[in-house]
Amino acid sequence: MKILIVNGPNLNRLGSREPGIYGHTTMEECVAALRARFPEVELEYYQSNVEGFLIDRLQVAEGCVDGVVLNAGAYTHTSVALHDAIRSLSVPVVEVHISNVHGREEFRHRSLIAAACRGVIAGFGMDSYRLGVEALISLCKEEK
Amino acid sequence: MKILIVNGPNLNRLGSREPGIYGHTTMEECVAALRARFPEVELEYYQSNVEGFLIDRLQVAEGCVDGVVLNAGAYTHTSVALHDAIRSLSVPVVEVHISNVHGREEFRHRSLIAAACRGVIAGFGMDSYRLGVEALISLCKEEK
Amino acid sequence: MKILIVNGPNLNRLGSREPGIYGHTTMEECVAALRARFPEVELEYYQSNVEGFLIDRLQVAEGCVDGVVLNAGAYTHTSVALHDAIRSLSVPVVEVHISNVHGREEFRHRSLIAAACRGVIAGFGMDSYRLGVEALISLCKEEK
Amino acid sequence: MKILIVNGPNLNRLGSREPGIYGHTTMEECVAALRARFPEVELEYYQSNVEGFLIDRLQVAEGCVDGVVLNAGAYTHTSVALHDAIRSLSVPVVEVHISNVHGREEFRHRSLIAAACRGVIAGFGMDSYRLGVEALISLCKEEK
Amino acid sequence: MKILIVNGPNLNRLGSREPGIYGHTTMEECVAALRARFPEVELEYYQSNVEGFLIDRLQVAEGCVDGVVLNAGAYTHTSVALHDAIRSLSVPVVEVHISNVHGREEFRHRSLIAAACRGVIAGFGMDSYRLGVEALISLCKEEK
Amino acid sequence: MKILIVNGPNLNRLGSREPGIYGHTTMEECVAALRARFPEVELEYYQSNVEGFLIDRLQVAEGCVDGVVLNAGAYTHTSVALHDAIRSLSVPVVEVHISNVHGREEFRHRSLIAAACRGVIAGFGMDSYRLGVEALISLCKEEK
Amino acid sequence: MKILIVNGPNLNRLGSREPGIYGHTTMEECVAALRARFPEVELEYYQSNVEGFLIDRLQVAEGCVDGVVLNAGAYTHTSVALHDAIRSLSVPVVEVHISNVHGREEFRHRSLIAAACRGVIAGFGMDSYRLGVEALISLCKEEK
Amino acid sequence: MKILIVNGPNLNRLGSREPGIYGHTTMEECVAALRARFPEVELEYYQSNVEGFLIDRLQVAEGCVDGVVLNAGAYTHTSVALHDAIRSLSVPVVEVHISNVHGREEFRHRSLIAAACRGVIAGFGMDSYRLGVEALISLCKEEK
Amino acid sequence: MKILIVNGPNLNRLGSREPGIYGHTTMEECVAALRARFPEVELEYYQSNVEGFLIDRLQVAEGCVDGVVLNAGAYTHTSVALHDAIRSLSVPVVEVHISNVHGREEFRHRSLIAAACRGVIAGFGMDSYRLGVEALISLCKEEK
Amino acid sequence: MKILIVNGPNLNRLGSREPGIYGHTTMEECVAALRARFPEVELEYYQSNVEGFLIDRLQVAEGCVDGVVLNAGAYTHTSVALHDAIRSLSVPVVEVHISNVHGREEFRHRSLIAAACRGVIAGFGMDSYRLGVEALISLCKEEK
Amino acid sequence: MKILIVNGPNLNRLGSREPGIYGHTTMEECVAALRARFPEVELEYYQSNVEGFLIDRLQVAEGCVDGVVLNAGAYTHTSVALHDAIRSLSVPVVEVHISNVHGREEFRHRSLIAAACRGVIAGFGMDSYRLGVEALISLCKEEK
Amino acid sequence: MKILIVNGPNLNRLGSREPGIYGHTTMEECVAALRARFPEVELEYYQSNVEGFLIDRLQVAEGCVDGVVLNAGAYTHTSVALHDAIRSLSVPVVEVHISNVHGREEFRHRSLIAAACRGVIAGFGMDSYRLGVEALISLCKEEK
Repeated sequence: MKILIVNGPNLNRLGSREPGIYGHTTMEECVAALRARFPEVELEYYQSNVEGFLIDRLQVAEGCVDGVVLNAGAYTHTSVALHDAIRSLSVPVVEVHISNVHGREEFRHRSLIAAACRGVIAGFGMDSYRLGVEALISLCKEEK
Repeated sequence: MKILIVNGPNLNRLGSREPGIYGHTTMEECVAALRARFPEVELEYYQSNVEGFLIDRLQVAEGCVDGVVLNAGAYTHTSVALHDAIRSLSVPVVEVHISNVHGREEFRHRSLIAAACRGVIAGFGMDSYRLGVEALISLCKEEK
Repeated sequence: MKILIVNGPNLNRLGSREPGIYGHTTMEECVAALRARFPEVELEYYQSNVEGFLIDRLQVAEGCVDGVVLNAGAYTHTSVALHDAIRSLSVPVVEVHISNVHGREEFRHRSLIAAACRGVIAGFGMDSYRLGVEALISLCKEEK
Repeated sequence: MKILIVNGPNLNRLGSREPGIYGHTTMEECVAALRARFPEVELEYYQSNVEGFLIDRLQVAEGCVDGVVLNAGAYTHTSVALHDAIRSLSVPVVEVHISNVHGREEFRHRSLIAAACRGVIAGFGMDSYRLGVEALISLCKEEK
Repeated sequence: MKILIVNGPNLNRLGSREPGIYGHTTMEECVAALRARFPEVELEYYQSNVEGFLIDRLQVAEGCVDGVVLNAGAYTHTSVALHDAIRSLSVPVVEVHISNVHGREEFRHRSLIAAACRGVIAGFGMDSYRLGVEALISLCKEEK
Repeated sequence: MKILIVNGPNLNRLGSREPGIYGHTTMEECVAALRARFPEVELEYYQSNVEGFLIDRLQVAEGCVDGVVLNAGAYTHTSVALHDAIRSLSVPVVEVHISNVHGREEFRHRSLIAAACRGVIAGFGMDSYRLGVEALISLCKEEK
Repeated sequence: MKILIVNGPNLNRLGSREPGIYGHTTMEECVAALRARFPEVELEYYQSNVEGFLIDRLQVAEGCVDGVVLNAGAYTHTSVALHDAIRSLSVPVVEVHISNVHGREEFRHRSLIAAACRGVIAGFGMDSYRLGVEALISLCKEEK
Repeated sequence: MKILIVNGPNLNRLGSREPGIYGHTTMEECVAALRARFPEVELEYYQSNVEGFLIDRLQVAEGCVDGVVLNAGAYTHTSVALHDAIRSLSVPVVEVHISNVHGREEFRHRSLIAAACRGVIAGFGMDSYRLGVEALISLCKEEK
Repeated sequence: MKILIVNGPNLNRLGSREPGIYGHTTMEECVAALRARFPEVELEYYQSNVEGFLIDRLQVAEGCVDGVVLNAGAYTHTSVALHDAIRSLSVPVVEVHISNVHGREEFRHRSLIAAACRGVIAGFGMDSYRLGVEALISLCKEEK
Repeated sequence: MKILIVNGPNLNRLGSREPGIYGHTTMEECVAALRARFPEVELEYYQSNVEGFLIDRLQVAEGCVDGVVLNAGAYTHTSVALHDAIRSLSVPVVEVHISNVHGREEFRHRSLIAAACRGVIAGFGMDSYRLGVEALISLCKEEK
Repeated sequence: MKILIVNGPNLNRLGSREPGIYGHTTMEECVAALRARFPEVELEYYQSNVEGFLIDRLQVAEGCVDGVVLNAGAYTHTSVALHDAIRSLSVPVVEVHISNVHGREEFRHRSLIAAACRGVIAGFGMDSYRLGVEALISLCKEEK
Repeated sequence: MKILIVNGPNLNRLGSREPGIYGHTTMEECVAALRARFPEVELEYYQSNVEGFLIDRLQVAEGCVDGVVLNAGAYTHTSVALHDAIRSLSVPVVEVHISNVHGREEFRHRSLIAAACRGVIAGFGMDSYRLGVEALISLCKEEK
């Protein structure tokens, strides 16, 4: 089983960026911990600050992975293009967020991509990624 | 460890209500499956169609349980009173939804309670409850 | 044939509450008149000020009555939970109002439950209930 | 007793226009059925696609008929002029719709004419006209 | 002279709920202090988390008390049904709030019940209840 | 000098329509009074309930009259087509209203045609027409 | 007969301020022309840039003049206080504007004072004042 | 092959109306040029300023023509009735505009009829009609 | 103890201005009654129709009085400047209104200054001022 | 003559992406067909998922091509930057869409780039590109 | 060279008013520092809490100064009258703010005067005034 | 001291793009002039049309420069991702614009990044960059 984790803009700075909101763990540590926890899953990781490169990466995932955990960061709230990219995939995509976006600024309450995803997990810190992987494993089993 | 699962209006009819959206599993089957999966957790379950009774139940949870998994159903979108009840608790509350509310009617896109909860899990069918329990177990461990 | 009439908040005070808008007839008189007019129909009547009890009552109607005449009163404008309860029933529900809600305050113009009902009848005073019963009788005949 | 039935734009094509929404009965059949059902009532019927001609027809109804059943079709949602025409009449006007407009597109949820009518009946197919005539007969009796 | 104090959802937890906003006094202490201060007034107290039970209680107040001090809590912002219940009473109702709702979240700025009350008092902590009783005493004297 | 007075929907019933708002004078009396007051002006009068016929009439006015006094009635608030018709004329058009539209329903506050007219006169009863003619006479003199 | 003309902010610069919109005539010339045209009317003129001074002036007009022509300039769009001042007067007030405000910026389309005035005249350049005086003379005659 | 071109309000004045926006070609010249260019197509042309007559014309097109090129002019932005008329046809309708409506006033940005048409062509001057005919010819070939 | 009462625009006309809404008592009578009732409090009174003079007066109150009762009249709904002036004071300010603003026009429902005040009292006629003084006395005692 | 066709995000997957909406033709087949149909035109084709690369490509088109056919995909609805890039070009740009965006989700109804383009063609499947090229050829001829 | 600095409401209290937002420097110190830094510029300073007096002062600046640095304080967000006053001047006006208004309350995000000014400088504390003077010096040089 | 100047989309075409709005100076000339004027400051310059590359560049600025002058061009109005990137930096960022964005289209009035910046400078042509550098120099001095 193969799962792709995709992170959007500014998430390459996890660990140093606003630790009061996002914590002190880096994404590298997070991915390592996930690999340790899910030895049966092959985990790929991709990050970009460029909206279009995220779309490029999602497109080539089709047929190569069994599911995608996507934290689109700020593009969650502004990108119709990511919405379209997700909807055009047949593999399931799970939207995750580190912080509870509903408790933050108004402009973070609306997700333009949620309707194209299978489900949403938000607010559990880095544990959101772990829950996202768990959710995908279940989804994949069910659909087989 | 003790976790309370609270279900709001119309969720007593899971299994028979609109199975195209909510599936064929009843809540009783779901709770039984959760108890089997998490033998170390004591699971209580409460359901009511009455907004005020849900508040009553949440209030007495304070000090008695370690966390709450709450599917407030339609009150998610209309109840400031539940928001206040959750915020006045010190135990963590996780909001869950069976369906992906963002892919449904406009009036289901806004959650009045999300900002008062620790996190949100939506769209994974009955598996949303399982993920909610997982998330709570992690939250409780972290905070100890 | 069996029809359930359900009245929402403050409608227990019909006859004494704002008679300029709602008239002087009590609901008891109204139900009696309906029973006299439709001897072939078994009419049940239920009223509650509690949103959740209205949902409870609608749920147990499934399979027991042939149709529901529902005046949800003020909950018409605020209750997504009643919308869901109605939609989960297979028996037809007709929304009725005594006054012409469109000629009153802005916040009474929007019905959150209308989309889940078969039809709407508003503005004919207590005669709205009679027309609701008539409409249900036709609907039931058609669907047989 | 004399009642005028007025139909607005595109309702001349009932029976052939989008039968999934509006059914297969033509308006001619509907009027014939109403005449059979209410032999004591003299029924006139008028249809036009022209907003101003509907106003013309309503104006000359004053003093000639005892009530009007009006299905203004799409003009329901856009015509302040029809609102004014109805309000300037002393005979009662009942707004009817074949489909449940609240369950359709957003722009069909608002009625600009409802506030000027006595009451509204929507969603019962061609039976909406029958209920409209019933409502008018009651209204006329009451007001005598 | 008889005055009823009605408290809505979550106000049974005054003293322990978010003391930074609501203070450390319990409602029992508050009512005791009011009884001491206004020996000539018979004070009744009622609290419920259930919207419909608040309506029930207001309805039976008609004819039994001279006025009502109502802190509807979160239902202030969402309940058309309470608005209707208040409007159908002939005894005066005064809306009170402990905190200054205008300085809090956007969704607490709108009161759906204020237009049905005689007046509003907000922001003075537990003293808001005392001022509410004072206001009612004056209103009752004036209207005699 | 030649001036055309154009009246929109329902204004043919002036004198009998809602006299509390529009007064008891008929339009025929009004035009007669205007002809008496302005003997040097040739006054034409046209009324229709049909939006398109009003446009037809305005189009043929080009080159034949020196100015137009237009009371578009309810079309004032809904007609982009009349806006376009007025804007395509080179003769000046003055918008008049009998009642003070700003003191009435919300939907009468917006004028879709005002921006295409030279000026607006509203609220002076039938005297609005007289003031409209006066304004046009001045405009024509100035532009010569 | 005595009429007060009141001008709001920036209207003291008429003649030099944006002549493309407001023309080259000064207000002094305009008042002189009005006095010449209406010898039977005693015309007073007041201008201030201060919202509160305009209110002061309107208040003392009560009982001293027979009517007011008011061009509130930019305060037209922002002042509830002027609305209240006008409404508290028993003498009639006519709102005038030099330019056609509906053809300018969005924020000039809304008048907060129109609903408190008898009528509105806009778009006729300095002639708007003349028409305003004419309208007032008629209003005063009628009301005697 | 037979195509109907329908023009809405004010488009009978093409060539003389606001040539800065709409150009100097008359519609007669345009139709003649189209007939010359598409000798294999029988072109009918209809124009009216009356919304209802446009609906009448569209209705009788059903079964008589292979497609419709519709420039509904200002009714594009206000007519739900035309939307319904188009949707009830089985022949394809193409919406065209001479000017680029998106670069003009805000109220011209919304098309109420576009969702009922097959496609939209806007901004190419009189060439929009030619492109509309081309598009229809392709559509018809495809659907055969 | 020293309290300043500040009244905004048009409140100098209390007693004669719209007595149906504001009553027949003048502000002079009101202040005299307050002085009689609270002999231990030194009461100053200030009124102006000028927004900026109200700010001037509030600024010099700092350090000279123990609290302010402010009825900002219409500026309540439009003045950010008063909001800022209040917020920059360390003495407590209580917002009062004579009428129940929530039961009046839409534009009176929003208070721009409430968030800067300690609390709000509205709807009790002239008694609102008395309650405001009572509230301030309590506030001052508490804060000592 | 030289024309550039630019496709935005996700349009590289035409043929396989949601064929129910976008059809089975790939863009390569489409461009080949266009080259065959317009042998006199040199056609370049560019696609990118990156908003900024689309801007880069448009900028270098200036002076090198005679016109641009642009299907900006999802960026149509969110990109002010593309609007600016188009506006800064002197070569004409035609906006095209494969599907009829007006019949899809609300967020696809608004085009941020249309006002900067010469015209819009939407809803004709892959034929939209052909019509776009036709429109450009005409535009170029006209402007020579 | 002569520059006028104009400060609006509550800015006379700089140094003591909310120092967390506005700092500890008084305006007198600020002006003194500016005079020291720009010995070649004659600096005048004016402050008022009265909107109309600010307009008065701006009007007499015309022809007397070479530019204006305006911090309109709270009137920035509410005053159309100041917008008009600025627009009617031929000397350049620069809008400055001490705090970064975009990071504060929603109602401070909109500037009604910015469109009438040459430019805006906000967020640099008292240094905003210095930058405003610099900007004006450059503007004046350029325009000579 | 080291300052980075970052320019967003389309700003590489300064000098040739819409010179009526943006002037004739190229950015290269502008940077050269700034280097001449501020010899003590090391100035770096970066431009990209790609939102994500701008974020990349800002991220690596952390710790390498003392401040950033950012003209995000059209991304100012649409990019939450840039807002997040700026907020995650500890070096100060100043937002600049060449034109006065408030005097242009509605969609240019809102800045999504301003709240994350220290301050904003807009409307002074290329001089905005110079003022931005000046502002940063002061900010850096103050914070040392």
